[in-house]
Order: sequence, then structure tokens, then C-alpha cells
Amino acid sequence: MATDSSRRNFIKKLGITSGLFALGGSPFIPKVQAKEEAFLHHNKRSAGAVYMGGFRAKPLPVVKLAFIGLNRGFTHVAHASVLDNVQIIAVCDLHQDLVERSVKRVRDKAGYAPKGYGKDPQDYHRMLEECKPDAVCISTDWATHVPIACACMEAGAHAFVEVPFSTSLDELWQLVNTSERTQKHCMMLENVNYGREELMYLNMTRQHVIGELLHGEAAYIHNLRDMMMDKERGEGVWRPDYMQRINGNLYPTHGLGPVAQYMNLARTEDQFDSIVSMSSPALGRTAYAKKKLPAEHHWNTKCFVCGDMNTSIIKTTVGRTIVVQWDETTPRPYSRHNLIQGTAGTLAGFPTRVAGEKLGNGNYHNWIEGEQLQAIYEQYDHPLWRKIGETAQKMGGHGGMDFVMMYRIVECLHKGEPLDQNVYEGAFWSAVCPLSAQSVAQGGIPVRFPDFTRGDWKTTVPLGIVC
Amino acid sequence: MATDSSRRNFIKKLGITSGLFALGGSPFIPKVQAKEEAFLHHNKRSAGAVYMGGFRAKPLPVVKLAFIGLNRGFTHVAHASVLDNVQIIAVCDLHQDLVERSVKRVRDKAGYAPKGYGKDPQDYHRMLEECKPDAVCISTDWATHVPIACACMEAGAHAFVEVPFSTSLDELWQLVNTSERTQKHCMMLENVNYGREELMYLNMTRQHVIGELLHGEAAYIHNLRDMMMDKERGEGVWRPDYMQRINGNLYPTHGLGPVAQYMNLARTEDQFDSIVSMSSPALGRTAYAKKKLPAEHHWNTKCFVCGDMNTSIIKTTVGRTIVVQWDETTPRPYSRHNLIQGTAGTLAGFPTRVAGEKLGNGNYHNWIEGEQLQAIYEQYDHPLWRKIGETAQKMGGHGGMDFVMMYRIVECLHKGEPLDQNVYEGAFWSAVCPLSAQSVAQGGIPVRFPDFTRGDWKTTVPLGIVC
Repeated sequence: MATDSSRRNFIKKLGITSGLFALGGSPFIPKVQAKEEAFLHHNKRSAGAVYMGGFRAKPLPVVKLAFIGLNRGFTHVAHASVLDNVQIIAVCDLHQDLVERSVKRVRDKAGYAPKGYGKDPQDYHRMLEECKPDAVCISTDWATHVPIACACMEAGAHAFVEVPFSTSLDELWQLVNTSERTQKHCMMLENVNYGREELMYLNMTRQHVIGELLHGEAAYIHNLRDMMMDKERGEGVWRPDYMQRINGNLYPTHGLGPVAQYMNLARTEDQFDSIVSMSSPALGRTAYAKKKLPAEHHWNTKCFVCGDMNTSIIKTTVGRTIVVQWDETTPRPYSRHNLIQGTAGTLAGFPTRVAGEKLGNGNYHNWIEGEQLQAIYEQYDHPLWRKIGETAQKMGGHGGMDFVMMYRIVECLHKGEPLDQNVYEGAFWSAVCPLSAQSVAQGGIPVRFPDFTRGDWKTTVPLGIVC
Repeated sequence: MATDSSRRNFIKKLGITSGLFALGGSPFIPKVQAKEEAFLHHNKRSAGAVYMGGFRAKPLPVVKLAFIGLNRGFTHVAHASVLDNVQIIAVCDLHQDLVERSVKRVRDKAGYAPKGYGKDPQDYHRMLEECKPDAVCISTDWATHVPIACACMEAGAHAFVEVPFSTSLDELWQLVNTSERTQKHCMMLENVNYGREELMYLNMTRQHVIGELLHGEAAYIHNLRDMMMDKERGEGVWRPDYMQRINGNLYPTHGLGPVAQYMNLARTEDQFDSIVSMSSPALGRTAYAKKKLPAEHHWNTKCFVCGDMNTSIIKTTVGRTIVVQWDETTPRPYSRHNLIQGTAGTLAGFPTRVAGEKLGNGNYHNWIEGEQLQAIYEQYDHPLWRKIGETAQKMGGHGGMDFVMMYRIVECLHKGEPLDQNVYEGAFWSAVCPLSAQSVAQGGIPVRFPDFTRGDWKTTVPLGIVC
């Protein structure tokens, strides 16, 4: 056990003080970094580009799918392989065993074999050229999301990209601009929006069960330190590197995606306005590396700068607030805490619990939770979940959400319907990463969201999800 | 059920946009209000004034107590009346029936009658002059906390003041300066610091059970709208008025007090640095007044400006973060959510649950909660709770915390020990109200805490509570 004295010295060593503003609210002049202003130049859409909110692509009788990145991507392959109106034409990964596993799964489930690619990091270009997929699911490392997604769109394929799209505002604009210019969908694969609870809360907010929406909360708390032990493959090979470079919320979209859609952010009713963010000290990763890895290991030779817990508050255009938290470092029990609060009630997750004037617990001293929720599910389960929830749960993948997502992607592409998440939503949700980092670096100053829609969000109808 | 169209119009009417800063992190120049700079003039302690952190007053064989404000104050009278080394010499309230109730309680429990006061709002001066109490408990409305507390100290009595001390920075400085000049204690009556769970978590953080502290959370969520129906007496007569004037966190101390002491804020190890704050729209109070009260009622003739839910993030000097939330308006189930997170575990409240490397749940997928907590209580219950917790629970008052607080006040005064909460701690915790309001008014800009200790917090030892 540390003594009080050693503990204080340890804390002093952190040397982390925001120390940026004068006593008592007098002016604080933030540093403006050149890079942060890059997106000021994106105010005008280029010639031939069109707004992609509500975009409908040509219906596809059979959706020809390809998959790049087959670690996480295997789940998507597995789900797509049992769906109607799909042909999996190619799979691509640098690890041959992952390619073979995906090929085998398709052969076993669908009775045919997709082509395998991945002889080098650029082999996906050959795949795009030879196979001409209608759509590509990209589950690679964060650094390659955007180059690969843009190449897919340029090659005529809709792009589906794992979370987050990117940690850089410039890259988010690249996705938006490429999607607008090529008129190809670019959807982030935010699976949590398809969880049973999240779909039900979307359904309930659409029915105004909790009145006017006021406030939301979204957290991703998942102790992933052990990932740092990964060798050669796995997210742990590259993901902690971001924590040595960026101090902010690197993984905001699982919590934020559902809340943003409850509030209809970037869809007519409301919009992202600004964000403030503060991080705790960054102690956990350094301590873990020191304890578990040799001194010369790369996780020991550079400093971890990303605070173990990041907390941000987002302000929306109509004045609502959303608290977004992220912690992948400390030994806290897993939580995807999420909450949507209105003038007449509150819906919360982890554990699922609801309260509201229309829900029968008018005393507001207790939540409706546990077994009492059965009646809530019976009344408010989302039609989409009623339709395929049982199958989805059998298929697995985060309790069914992964399967529902793939089902909807194929359904929308097949019918030529707008996707459930447009490119702007993916960009806004991902933008919390670079914007929170800007705020943290400047002592928590509010930073305004760029408007990736260039004002057109007012024309995009709220998500309905018609089954 | 509102239609989508009427709902949107309703939201538009709010007209709440922060709208203060340029796109993408370019400089935001905050407004500086003259009043906000008032405390810049408090950098020097006046001649004869002394720093009151760790102050020891002369031991008192019998502590002569008086009580002003006997609605909430009745609980304090009741608890003091059964303690040793106490004489309750006077009670004061504008409502004669409340005076009589308190006099009767003392007579019944202690066998003697205190003098009654309260013929007019200034009658407490006569009480101070005639009775010369050693200490006075002040449980009046917020507007009179500071004038009464200062008068008590000037009259030679230690002042104990209900939460919050004040909603104004100027008044907080008045308390600090008066306490320093008169060398009388001025303690805020933050009872939650004496809850069983909070005391245990203090004990556990002192033993470094969860490693280095990183992050805390503190909420007060309590649907108190019905208070607006109060007539003539009760907090509802005056408290909602603040919500028509101030948009921020008006009631931060219940959650923040315990977290601040876990972190040793303003006590050598760490200090309050800055705060950012954002409020949700203010819809609930106006809707409630419209629904429940006549059009000409004063809650219907002015606008409620205070957002229904306020969220703030505090940054400490060593870089820790604390999320503070407050909502007395929406119909959410009650919560005094509190949480302290360290590099080796997390302790949380509402419901009580813990996790940590030293606590035996190394997998971090589940909390230790419910019946499993028994072993935690056995090992970590605070010595103070072991000593008087059982009695406190029998005495009642928020599960025993009120009684423990009064027990400690009397014990410290009797022995001439430093109090558990010094005047600076009460000022810092209360300052969240005016500082959050400043931040909210300027779109969430970080506002620095004034240093009520004028740098002397580095000399104040962490709270131990010796029994």
C-alpha cells in the first residue's frame, strides 16, 4: 500500500493542471491550431456533389457484398451468409487463416465460396476491380477505415465502416465529400442502435412516451487493458497507440448513436451544437505496461497521454444536453450506460429500467425494472425487434444487434430505401473524438461541431425504420 | 399525445442555443461580468484575520446551542436534545407552532425548556444578545443563511449553516472573511458526508483500496416539483424563485461533499481548479405551474430559466474530474448517485456497489452488491459508523446521517477539535452554484474556482475523523 507521502509525490509527478484561465471567469483565450480550422474550408459542396441525407440508391435484386477485415468482420460475414438477397462475392484480410475461415463459413451456410484476397495491404484494390461489389463492409484498423472506404465508393460500392469512422475531422470530411460526389452510401456500422433496448427506446421516444426530450447519457466503460498484450494481430496491436497520441474520447459512438437518434439529431428536429470535455489523469495504461510488459516493449517506451476516463457534455441546437463517457482502462465493471430523459419520464440502460407518467409508476420513487419490464416490452418492443429479434438472438453477436444491423443493411440496399444511419450521422458521432480532444487540450473550452450536412439536416426526416 | 409538428414548434419556442463560438474551435471570447470579478479583490486576508483550516476552538465542557429555522431545524434540535455535553438554550422561528414543537421536544427528551424566539425576522439578534450561545444551527431559507451566520459569528458563536451556504460568490467570501476575522467556526451542515456508505468509502479511499483516485460523480436527482404548491411556509415558498433567476446547479453539495473529501480537495493533496457546465432546456417547472396553479399565481407570472437537468464537470488541480448533476424538476426516480473511481477499483452509490482488485472481484464484469456487500461492510465500515451507526439509524434523519453529523459537531466543539468540514470546504462546494451559472451563461466555458483559502489549503491535513 502506498504511503500518503509516496502517493502525493506520485500525483505531483502527473503535472496535469489545466491552468489556462484567469481567476473567476475572466477571459480565456484558447490556442487555435491550424489543423482545427481545416474544416472551415468545407462550407461549400463541390460541383456535382449531392446531399446524401435520405439518399435512395438503385434497388438491388441481389446485393453483392464484399468484406475487408475479417477479425471483427467474420461476424458480419456469418450473418450475411444466412440472409436472402445476398451474394458474398469476396473476403479480404492480410491473415490467410481469417480469409479461409470466412470462405468456409459462407460455403457451409450458403453453399458457395467467395473469392479470397489479402496478399498485401493494397490487395483490396484488386478485389474491388475484379469483383465489383455493390457494397463493402470494412472492419479494419482505424487508420485504414477512410482510405479503404473512399476507394470503395470511388469504385462504385457503398461503404459500411466499423466504429468510429475516424478520429480525424479531415477524414470525416473526406468520407462526407466522397459519398456526396460518388453518390454512394457510407454508413458507420453502429450496431448498438439495433439493440433490443435501444430500438424499444427509439420506439418509445417516437411515441412521446416520456414527453419532450431534455437530456441524454451515453457511456462506454470496458476494461480492455489486456488488449495491450496482443502480438502481431488483434486490436491491441494498434489501438493503444491512439492513447499515446490523443487525449479525449476515442470511442464515443456506441453510446451516442442511439441517443442521437432518439433526439433526431441531424434530422430536422435538432442538431449537434457544441461540446465540452475533460479527461482524468492517464495512469492506468502506463502502470499496466510497466507491470506486464518488458521495459523495451513499445507500450513502455512512449507515454500514454489519454486520460483513463473522459467525460464530455454535448449541447444541441435546441439546448438539450448529452453526457458522453469513455473508459477502456480502469478496472470498472463493463457498462454501456445509456439514458434518455424527458419532461414525463426517463428510459435508462445497464440495467434496463424505465419510469414515466404514462408507464404507471407515477410516484417516481422506483424504476420499473427486472421482471416488471415484461409489460413494457410487450407494449413497446420495436416492430423490427418483434419481426427478427428472436432470430437475431439465436444468431448471436452482442445479443442480436449485429444481426439486426446486417439484416437492415441488406433490406435497405435490396429495396433501395435510405439507410438507417446516413454518412452525416456517422461523422457527427465520430467527431466527438477530435472535438473532445480539442476541448481537453484547452482546459474544457466549448468547441463547436462542424455541420457536415452544410445546413441540409433540416431536410432529413427522422428515422422511422419501417418494417 | 403531441403531434410531431406541435412538438417541433414547442421546441423552437425554447430558442435556446448557446451560439457563442465560431465553428471548429476558433476563439471564443467570453463576456466578463463585473460581479464575477468581485472576488478578485479578496486575494489578501485582512489584518487580524487567520486561516481557519484545521482551526481548534477552545474546548467547551457544555456546548450551549441555539437553533434558527425550525422546520428542517427540528431534526437537529431533536438529535441535539439526546446528546451529552449539550445545552439547548434557545430556538427561533417566525412560526410560533414550530417554536413550541422544538421547545416541547427538548423538554421531553432533556428535561428543560429552551427559550423561544421569533416575533419578527430580526428577533434572532435579541436571542444572540440575551442567550450568548456557543454555537448556532441555521436552517432558514437560502437568502438569510449568510446574514444570520455572520451575525452569529460577530456575536461570538460558531455558525452551522444548512446547504448550500449561499448561491452567491460574494456571500461565500463574506462567510470566509467573517469566520477568519472572528475566529469562529463556520461549517456547512452537509449531512451526506456522514452517511454509512459515504463514511465507508472515505475509509476505503484513505486505505488506498481503489488505488490512485481518478474520477468522481455526484448527483442530486429529486423530483421536488410538488413543493411549488406550498403556501405560506415550506421551502416551496421561496426555493423555486431561484429557478426563475439562476440557470445552473443550485444544489450541488450533497453529492459533491463526500467526493471532495475522498479526494482531499482543499486539504493538501488536491484542490478545485475549474468547472464547465451545461443545462438542459427549462420546461418542467413552467409546465407544472401551468397545469397545477392559477394563471395569476406568482409561479405562473415569471419564466423559469433554470434548466431541468444541469450537468457540470469539475477539474481538480492534479487533473481529476468530477461530474456533478442536479435535477429537482423532472419525474425521475430519486437518486443521489455518487461514485469514486481509482486505478484499482470503483465505489458507487444508488445502489451501493463496489469493484476492485483488492476486493476480490478481479474479473470486473460484475459489481459486488446486494447481499455480497456484507463482507465489505464488515471489513471497511468507518470507525465512526461502528461506534454510533446503530444509534443513528434508530434516531432517524436520512438513514442516520443527520444524527452522526450532530454527534460529531458536539464532539468536536466539546473537545476543541477541528471540525470535519471547514468553512472553505463549504464555500467550495457551494460555489458550484454561481460558477456553474457563469459557465452555462457563456455556453459551457471553463470557469476557475476562486481560492477561498488564499493558498493555505496546502497546509490543511486530510480529514481523518478520529473516534
